[in-house]
Amino acid sequence: MGSIDVAAQARILGRQNRLTTTAGIAPGYLQANLLVLPAKYASDFQDLCLRNPVSCPLLGISASPGDPHTVKPAGCIRSADFDLRTDFPKYRVYKRGKYLDSRRDLLDVWTPDHVGFLIGCSFSFEDALTAAGLLPRHQQTGSIVAMYRSNIPLLPAGIFTGAHCIVSMRPYRPDQIDRVREVTRPYLSTHGEPVAWGWDGVKQLGIEDIGQPDFGEPQVFEEGEVPVFWACGVTPQMAVESSGHHIDGLVFAHEPGHMLVTDWTSQDLPKLRPSNV
Amino acid sequence: MGSIDVAAQARILGRQNRLTTTAGIAPGYLQANLLVLPAKYASDFQDLCLRNPVSCPLLGISASPGDPHTVKPAGCIRSADFDLRTDFPKYRVYKRGKYLDSRRDLLDVWTPDHVGFLIGCSFSFEDALTAAGLLPRHQQTGSIVAMYRSNIPLLPAGIFTGAHCIVSMRPYRPDQIDRVREVTRPYLSTHGEPVAWGWDGVKQLGIEDIGQPDFGEPQVFEEGEVPVFWACGVTPQMAVESSGHHIDGLVFAHEPGHMLVTDWTSQDLPKLRPSNV
Repeated sequence: MGSIDVAAQARILGRQNRLTTTAGIAPGYLQANLLVLPAKYASDFQDLCLRNPVSCPLLGISASPGDPHTVKPAGCIRSADFDLRTDFPKYRVYKRGKYLDSRRDLLDVWTPDHVGFLIGCSFSFEDALTAAGLLPRHQQTGSIVAMYRSNIPLLPAGIFTGAHCIVSMRPYRPDQIDRVREVTRPYLSTHGEPVAWGWDGVKQLGIEDIGQPDFGEPQVFEEGEVPVFWACGVTPQMAVESSGHHIDGLVFAHEPGHMLVTDWTSQDLPKLRPSNV
Repeated sequence: MGSIDVAAQARILGRQNRLTTTAGIAPGYLQANLLVLPAKYASDFQDLCLRNPVSCPLLGISASPGDPHTVKPAGCIRSADFDLRTDFPKYRVYKRGKYLDSRRDLLDVWTPDHVGFLIGCSFSFEDALTAAGLLPRHQQTGSIVAMYRSNIPLLPAGIFTGAHCIVSMRPYRPDQIDRVREVTRPYLSTHGEPVAWGWDGVKQLGIEDIGQPDFGEPQVFEEGEVPVFWACGVTPQMAVESSGHHIDGLVFAHEPGHMLVTDWTSQDLPKLRPSNV
């Protein structure tokens, strides 16, 4: 079995709703978050991603509105039978920025007017941290990574205004931070290096209580460890929620933790640029 | 004379030090700011631009260290006799983040180890505002645009940490803002649409006194007008100044107002993406 089959097989398992999480599935392959919008908002959302590539790194986009089978650029997804509406293990449906329900597929809600965006996911750089002997704490403890609302503004684009960057947090010792930054730096398409670190970083980001994340679970700090923050893929979803009152028609996203395994690996990273899409 | 010659001619005038400003020169052609660094910092600086494309929009980069004649990508500069060391009307020299002096050219300070970065400039979108009947106030009054330090963090990359986004400000009436945003939105490679606006925007950005800009000159507000803020090309220069203590070797920049006229026009904008460089 060629290495490409590992990713294709993960997508088939997703299509069959046989995965409860894509964490740890097909290591080395980049995973993607999903956002699907009516076509009239696609250009504003693409601008939002291009203006905020650290929190909203575009990996791929529907080749044309309504086409669930083709994602550009080439190489992102190679399976001929790919389907955006089924190949994530689980989906969420939103109306006017409000969560409606979760679904196994989008077959009966997808319209010829929907455009899908694939967005880089931090699962990708976590593989690299683990390989470098810097296993993220939440993987070690089997918890969900801690996420916080930060005061870093998401630079506005069209209808998408007033949102802020969500950050994820992993504890490390101060003497590990240079290495942690180095290891995640090449992952420009999947949030890249940290946006802030240390207890000063907590203040800079306007986080009031590190023990009370806004999403996910609090993390255990070992002796001398400090928080290290990365931009988080929940950000584009929050942007769509906060501007949702402007949006006519249904919006779809992946269910958190239920990502798409792409055909790109970390070997492809040097050529991947969020705005080449 | 073909339209390409207008840009080439502007560069020759720059080379001959016959321009006191490039404002209003070769309308429709994109102008570029300059930053030149020793090669060992080039990758960190490129990451800084890719992570902060609104304030640091990369237009071009030296094809190889030390080569002052070739800028990639293709199309940015077409003149066969182009020279990064001479074709800006005026330059600044920095050492360890401190301004040393201003020069007409870089011929005797450029080394085989220097890498040049061309960065998009707001002069480009000001042409578009003027064409849409939205002449920026500072052009009308013959003053220098007002610039402020904001609290928007520049997301760190390698040695470049702890800097903030500088914003430029132009007054408009609230009923003009939608149009102002629309007109500047396509200019992704030259700062794009505003980052904040209105008196709420002043608070969001942490600006204490709109009458006391950090750079440039205060602007006149007419009855009912509010400030509109864009990310500003002074930002990368400030980032280099604030991390300058890490930098061995000389750093060069353009003298403010003394930009390079590129061969790209606003017609090229749809294909220009800051990270295609």
